[in-house]
Amino acid sequence: MKILITGITGMVGSHLADFILSNHPDHEIHGLIRWRSPIDNIRAIIHKIHLHEGDLHDLNSIILLLDEVKPDRIFHLAAQSYVTFSFRVPVDTLNTNIIGTANLLDAIRIAGIDPLVHICSSSEVYGQVTEDEVPIKESNPFRPASPYAVSKVGEDMLGFQYFISYGIKTFRTRMFTHTGARRGDVFAESAFAKQIAEIEAGIKQNPMRVGNLESIRTFADVRDAVKAYWLLLEKCTPGEVYNIGGNRTMKIGEMLDVLKGFAKCRIEHKVDTALLRPSDVTLQIPDISKFQKETGWEPVIPLEKTLEDLLDYQRKKINK
Amino acid sequence: MKILITGITGMVGSHLADFILSNHPDHEIHGLIRWRSPIDNIRAIIHKIHLHEGDLHDLNSIILLLDEVKPDRIFHLAAQSYVTFSFRVPVDTLNTNIIGTANLLDAIRIAGIDPLVHICSSSEVYGQVTEDEVPIKESNPFRPASPYAVSKVGEDMLGFQYFISYGIKTFRTRMFTHTGARRGDVFAESAFAKQIAEIEAGIKQNPMRVGNLESIRTFADVRDAVKAYWLLLEKCTPGEVYNIGGNRTMKIGEMLDVLKGFAKCRIEHKVDTALLRPSDVTLQIPDISKFQKETGWEPVIPLEKTLEDLLDYQRKKINK
Repeated sequence: MKILITGITGMVGSHLADFILSNHPDHEIHGLIRWRSPIDNIRAIIHKIHLHEGDLHDLNSIILLLDEVKPDRIFHLAAQSYVTFSFRVPVDTLNTNIIGTANLLDAIRIAGIDPLVHICSSSEVYGQVTEDEVPIKESNPFRPASPYAVSKVGEDMLGFQYFISYGIKTFRTRMFTHTGARRGDVFAESAFAKQIAEIEAGIKQNPMRVGNLESIRTFADVRDAVKAYWLLLEKCTPGEVYNIGGNRTMKIGEMLDVLKGFAKCRIEHKVDTALLRPSDVTLQIPDISKFQKETGWEPVIPLEKTLEDLLDYQRKKINK
Repeated sequence: MKILITGITGMVGSHLADFILSNHPDHEIHGLIRWRSPIDNIRAIIHKIHLHEGDLHDLNSIILLLDEVKPDRIFHLAAQSYVTFSFRVPVDTLNTNIIGTANLLDAIRIAGIDPLVHICSSSEVYGQVTEDEVPIKESNPFRPASPYAVSKVGEDMLGFQYFISYGIKTFRTRMFTHTGARRGDVFAESAFAKQIAEIEAGIKQNPMRVGNLESIRTFADVRDAVKAYWLLLEKCTPGEVYNIGGNRTMKIGEMLDVLKGFAKCRIEHKVDTALLRPSDVTLQIPDISKFQKETGWEPVIPLEKTLEDLLDYQRKKINK
């Protein structure tokens, strides 16, 4: 089986490649990379996978790629995925996440192939919910609170529309917060872990800088997340959408406390208003019963393990 | 008061300018036009309005425009608005309708002005509904069945997000089918009227070509529609979304019969499969009670008058 992963150099894409190599070593893994994509996350497996240069902004390159590879399954993970940054680059975010997805879906039509396609939407589409609206079901209304969230509504709806209009077998997920090693430094938990590792190493002083600690999130380990994505294309229904997320719900501040518990020295923190978003969402608790019913998936990695591994990842990056 | 209309050269934009000139002659009307925009629809009023060259794809031109005009109200009507064409040009449609709207909203922030902004979403966002889901409320789910519909979901959600994130006073409408004189020839009712006028004039032979006649639509006159848009910014609530539409519901085929009733000779028609969309929506009946409660708006122009005026418009175009 031939599998194409867009965004293979990212946290989720690289963990997905790891998962497939470990569990289905007979499958061929192809990845789309852009000129100058950092490849740190896939350096260890680079001889076992096939990388193809191209860019989702350029329809031509995607058609050429699909003609060449003819993938049976596509995991479309490439995105501008940093919510806070999307307020600075709204048009780039909309372009990459919406137009990029349109190009991929159009290229599938043009190449005349019939793959299973994972479209990676996000829990951010739900935005601010009230207490009587949680846990969040797939039928909750869209209230996007960032350009990123708007872009994921667009990507999600394109996945639906190309299924309705052309029968392209799209499977949409709205994944809630997921993290672990290789998480980009711009995301809260990774920024926390990085600063702790730097303070441990003596290259940074207390206090570390943090943003909004009051938001409530349900956390999953990225390794559980990629297992869910694999099961999605194995067992779910094309055209449908699924909420997926972990089972540990807490405030960002509590997650910070867990991380601090692993630190080798005393860590102090201070809220930096520059890290607060113009609008934030605060009650992201998923109802994942639809997905569980079709797949039997359960998150199994405890959050403590996830955060410990993330901290170790940041420590190793410093010592490189 | 200074009013900016994007899309002023279109059917709706030009009728809105007519409405404001007739009812509020003391207001200043400004319009955004692109290089080579056809100006037939505004030729009669061109000396009474202020036109500014620019393009929604180019953020710079919109910032310059807003800095110069500093409008109190903006009606954002510019769009790639032809559903069938959007299947051929999905990326252009997404670009114009989503990125173009992001540029307008960003330009408002950058210019530091605080206008009332009409964001023109569409009933197409609802897509296919079941019989127990009509009449369609604002809370109905999104099921976009065309790239145009996806683009309007994106535009709609941007209007919401920029209100939530920055307090920009956006008022979103989801207008159902509206038509009349100046309707582009690519839309069903205008294509019908044009062909009838051509057969009457002897420059085309029977039968005329038609697409899907089974879809059910609720029709409004464009002159009632622009009155609704005016009331929207006068009386409604920023951040909210409103369904608006007429009160005459029928199949496209019945609308064709009304048009044929005005013809000066016998008209035959034939379904042309090339005019059928890859996916179509068939049960677009609005619940407009939210909008009516806040504005008291009622559609008053009978559909027969609308269609007669549309046919006269097509007859006059032939004789030009």
